[in-house]
Parts: sequence; structure tokens; C-alpha cells
Amino acid sequence: MSRVYNFSAGPAVLPEEVLQEAADEMLDYQGSGMSVMEMSHRSKVYDNIIKTAEQDLRDLMNIPDNYKVLFLQGGASQQFAMIPMNLMKNGVADYIVTGQWAKKAWQEASKYGKANKIASSEDKTFSYIPDCSDLPISEDADYVYICENNTIYGTKYKELPNTKGKTLVADVSSCFLSEPVDVTKYGVIYGGVQKNIGPAGVVIVIIREDLITEDVLPGTPTMLQYKTHADADSLYNTPPAYGIYICGKVFQWLKKMGGLEAMKKHNEEKAKILYDFLDQSEMFKGTVEPASRSLMNVPFVTGDADLDAKFVKEAAEAGFVNLKGHRTVGGMRASIYNAMPIEGVEKLVAFMKKFEEENA
Amino acid sequence: MSRVYNFSAGPAVLPEEVLQEAADEMLDYQGSGMSVMEMSHRSKVYDNIIKTAEQDLRDLMNIPDNYKVLFLQGGASQQFAMIPMNLMKNGVADYIVTGQWAKKAWQEASKYGKANKIASSEDKTFSYIPDCSDLPISEDADYVYICENNTIYGTKYKELPNTKGKTLVADVSSCFLSEPVDVTKYGVIYGGVQKNIGPAGVVIVIIREDLITEDVLPGTPTMLQYKTHADADSLYNTPPAYGIYICGKVFQWLKKMGGLEAMKKHNEEKAKILYDFLDQSEMFKGTVEPASRSLMNVPFVTGDADLDAKFVKEAAEAGFVNLKGHRTVGGMRASIYNAMPIEGVEKLVAFMKKFEEENA
Repeated sequence: MSRVYNFSAGPAVLPEEVLQEAADEMLDYQGSGMSVMEMSHRSKVYDNIIKTAEQDLRDLMNIPDNYKVLFLQGGASQQFAMIPMNLMKNGVADYIVTGQWAKKAWQEASKYGKANKIASSEDKTFSYIPDCSDLPISEDADYVYICENNTIYGTKYKELPNTKGKTLVADVSSCFLSEPVDVTKYGVIYGGVQKNIGPAGVVIVIIREDLITEDVLPGTPTMLQYKTHADADSLYNTPPAYGIYICGKVFQWLKKMGGLEAMKKHNEEKAKILYDFLDQSEMFKGTVEPASRSLMNVPFVTGDADLDAKFVKEAAEAGFVNLKGHRTVGGMRASIYNAMPIEGVEKLVAFMKKFEEENA
Repeated sequence: MSRVYNFSAGPAVLPEEVLQEAADEMLDYQGSGMSVMEMSHRSKVYDNIIKTAEQDLRDLMNIPDNYKVLFLQGGASQQFAMIPMNLMKNGVADYIVTGQWAKKAWQEASKYGKANKIASSEDKTFSYIPDCSDLPISEDADYVYICENNTIYGTKYKELPNTKGKTLVADVSSCFLSEPVDVTKYGVIYGGVQKNIGPAGVVIVIIREDLITEDVLPGTPTMLQYKTHADADSLYNTPPAYGIYICGKVFQWLKKMGGLEAMKKHNEEKAKILYDFLDQSEMFKGTVEPASRSLMNVPFVTGDADLDAKFVKEAAEAGFVNLKGHRTVGGMRASIYNAMPIEGVEKLVAFMKKFEEENA
């Protein structure tokens, strides 16, 4: 077996020891005589898995008691509808559009009420985070929405927007658990797990309890009401049980690694290696304004589409895979989530140096 | 490692060789250098996994070309809303209520239009399937809805209802792939996979193409429109990729086992062993009218709650687990899905005989 360095934007690299444990337990989870895939979600053994996962996440993020943690399905895309359906009490929300996913969220919300685009960085292909210190927040806004890390464009908010007292809702899919966060600054933090946490098919929603009400928009499906899942501790119907089990293993791995402060240091160190190289390279250039750079997704280009393609091809042959950039940015993108080891980035940079020399 | 006989109603037993293969491939899927959990859903290697899975399912069920196969999230519970939101063009549908899940589907549909309960077996704790040969089908019904196998109550339709030309929609979660079906008799066949096919978190929807339109109820979320997923071949957003991969392995296992005709024979043989024993036992009695008996879920009681509890406890100690019945029926339930080997049922019956002798 030979593992590659996988720079996929998501689904993405997972810690090797988590995968090894999952393999070891596949036919018999801790003496239960069955796989976690085969367990009733109402069984004691599974109850312990999901409860431990939730508690470990609470420990890692220091989630206050007045927030619920929900393990749901449908990805961020389904949250784009759930959020307005559940939170638009006044029928008004403000959206900051910093990329494709924020834009999709805004478009979906527009079906349910007045969704105002109060800022955008689309003018420069979403290559920066706008100044959000004094935006025209709507007086009757039910919430202000952001996508905190923009996977495609490689940007991240370094400061949260000034919401002028309104509830902040954030999609953190691609920066989930990559650094400490102050949960109390948000009304809702949510994200698909398939980048930093686990296999696709689980979305985690951390939501302040006062936002969970029966007062939802007419026609909101039972399964799209936060209250349905909050009241049932994420067991209203059969949850994506195996995915949650893997997430739980990643939470334990993160605790062992030293928690989110340690991950932040680890991620800053990795990103610095790559950004420092890009800043001095004659061939490769980062596409993002330095002040808005993500620690997780690093897009870069040579400026020559043929050379980009040559690089992606030769990199893959050398064991650095999934480096092709999103079609809207072009070039390359290295996603360097929590589970990407530092030597993966070091070796990638060494390969880039060599490529630059050979193709100067 | 010691595997138990797992009679869970779902999530449920999977073929051991499928689990073994998944374990073997966990760190490196067929030389890709990564787990299927870590793969981009847009990669060639994953594309091959999902396309092969779909084709194998089409082969197994003999699905005509004018039906789409969708791999979705949210379980059957989410379909309870998706079905009326997508299909209630006239705002009318007829529901046959044969258990808790059919009832929930009917209640959810009532939020979106006129959902008529045209038949029910609730008068006798859902212990039978009503005569559906001449029901009062609504003239303007958009569809007639059934739950074809009732997991909790252990009943199954032996003949499909006479819908008088209306579209038939069926939840087949707990009888999926347990025997051949004539897909052309349905407009929609769907089911959560966590009983007969794979890990929870995937729902498969087989839908006739003319039923997939943009003309959905106002406010239907993008993610709850069949057209969204049909147009994108189930890759509109990140799918539950690992779950689909396991489903694909089960499809291949089913083909190897001889397909659905062979599974029907296998399942009839297993069920006969258990029902024959129940029919002659002085202690254990099946709860379902013989003509409506499911091949998949077999509820039975002793008539004495304490004795039931003793049986469930001692059975678990002997390696026959998850035999406790649903609280609405009481007693016991043995779910004997495709992956339950015949010796599991034989040994269970031997254990029941011994228990009956010891506790006569």
C-alpha cells in the first residue's frame, strides 16, 4: 500500500490512524460482534458513539451549554434553505457574498424572503474578503450570513463582520476545527464534514437554542426544521451513523494532537511554507490578496494554462494529487486541511521548486 | 473477532465479505493511494464507483431507461416531503396507511395538499394489509402512496394496489432488493438503504422521467427537487460518497449470489423456517395475518411481557441480538434481511425451541 499526498478540496485527506482504526473495527466494533454500519442507531453501543462524538466536539470548540449540536444530512446546500426557512422571522436577511457557496446560499434565501447582498468581492473573482467593519446591516435583518472560508477562492475572514447586534450565521465547512473559534459570536455555525472532519454525508450545525423554534416558514418540511432534530438529539430518524462515528474518531485525534490551538499552529506553519514559496517564486503566484489568505485552501497559477496543466500532471505522477484548481479560478489549488502532514507541504514545495527550475 | 447474529430492523446486518473488502480497501482503494472517504466526488475513480453502482442496480432490478436512479440524503423521512412537493400538481394524493411510516408520510403530505387516507389497517395494530383491489381512488389524485413492507409490523403487500391508472409511489426501504420487482408498475420506488443495502445516510429514488419536472410546489428547496439531482446525476452537491460505495459492493454481492430471483428463494426459505416454527409453537406466536406476512421482518410474542424480556436477554447472551420488538407491538421482532444467512435463522429457531422447552 502506498498513500499519496491528497490535496483534494473535499472530500479530503483524513488522518491515517483514524482510517486504520476504522479498518480494524470494520467487522467487529469493540466486541459488539458487528460493524458500526450494522448497528441500530437506538442501541446503547451506538448511543455511546454519538454522545461521545458530541461531547468531544463540545470540548474542542468550547461550545456553551445554550448551543445545540446537530448531526444532519444534505450538506451545506441543504442548509442554504434550512437557514432562511427556520430563521427568517421578519423575512429579511443580509448576505455577504465572498464566493460561489455564499452566492448560492444568498440565491436560495431569496426564495424565502428579502435576502440583501450587503457586500461582495465578485468584482475581483472573489480574491479578497471585503471590509466588513461598517456594512449597511438591515434594521430588521433576522441574521447576517457569511461563508467564513471560501474553498474555491482560498480566502478567509480574519475578523468577523460587525453585524451591529444581528445574529451571525456562518458556513465554516472548509475551516471547521482548523483553529479555535469563539462560538458565542455566532448564532449558527455549520459545515459539511467532508473537508476537515469526516466522510461526506454529515453536516454539523451548532445553533444557539433561542433560534430553535416552531415558528418556521409555512411549508417547511419536518426534516428541515431544526427543532425536529434538536428535540430528538439528532435521532429523529436514522442518522448518517457511520459518518458520525468517523467524525468522532477525528475529534479524538484532534484532542490527542493538542486541540484547536495546536491545530492552528500546525496549520499556520504548513500554510507559511507554501505562501512563502509562492511569494518568492518567479513562476507560481498566489491568487489571493495576502490579508485574506486561507490557511486551508491555497490557489496559485503560473499564468500559462499549458504550464499549469503540465504541472498538475507531473505532480500527480510524483504522488501529489488533486492539485487542479477550480475552473472559475484556473491553475492549481492545494487544500491543506488538518490531516495534511507538514511533510506533504514541504515535499510539494520541493517539487514546485524543481519544476520551476526545470521549466524556467 | 466473533460476529453475532444481528436481527436489527435497521441499520442492519451486511454481507461479511462486503465489510471485509471495505476494511481491506480503507487506506488505499485499488491503488488510488487513498480511502474512498478521501476522494473527490468529481474524480475519475469515484465517478467509476457511482456509475458502476447505478448500472449494477439497474441490472439487478431491470430498471427501464426511462427511469432515473438517484442517490440522495435525508432518509425516507425526507422523501415524505419531497414526494408531495414534487408530485402534487393537482394538490391531491391518496395514501394507504399500513403502519407508522406510511402514516408519517401521509401526515407530512397533508401539509402540502389534500392527502386522502383511502385505506388503513390501524384498527388491528397494522397487523394486515387491507384489500386494495377496489379502493376509492381520487379522480384527480396525483399519485397513490404505499409503504410496501412495514418494518415495525412485519407486513408486506403481496399484490400491488389497483391504482386505477394513477401513479404508484412506494417506500420499499425494508424490502429493497429482497425479491424481483416490476419497476414499470411504479412511478417512484424509493428506500433508505440501511436495511438491505448499505450504511444509513443514503436513500435511493427510482423515478420515472416524466415525473421529474420544474413544476414543483412554491418554496421547494433546490435540494428537495428531483430535477436538481436528476440533471446532475446525483452529483449536484457532494453525495454520501462512502455510503454509495458500500451500496455498490452489496449490489455486486447480490449479482454474485444470483440476483433477485435467487434472493427471493433464499429469503422465502429463511422466512419459512421461522414462520413454520411460530405456527406450531405453544409459546411463541406471530402477530401478523398469514396472508400479509413479510419475508423481512417477523414480529412475535409470548403473550407475557416478562417472558418476552427473559427471551430477549437470554437470546442476546447466546449471540442473537436486537430481537426486542418495537414498543408499539411489544414482544420480539426478527429482521432477516438479505444478508442474514440461513444458519442464523436455523440457530435462532433452535434456540427458541430450547427456550420453549426450558420455560414451558
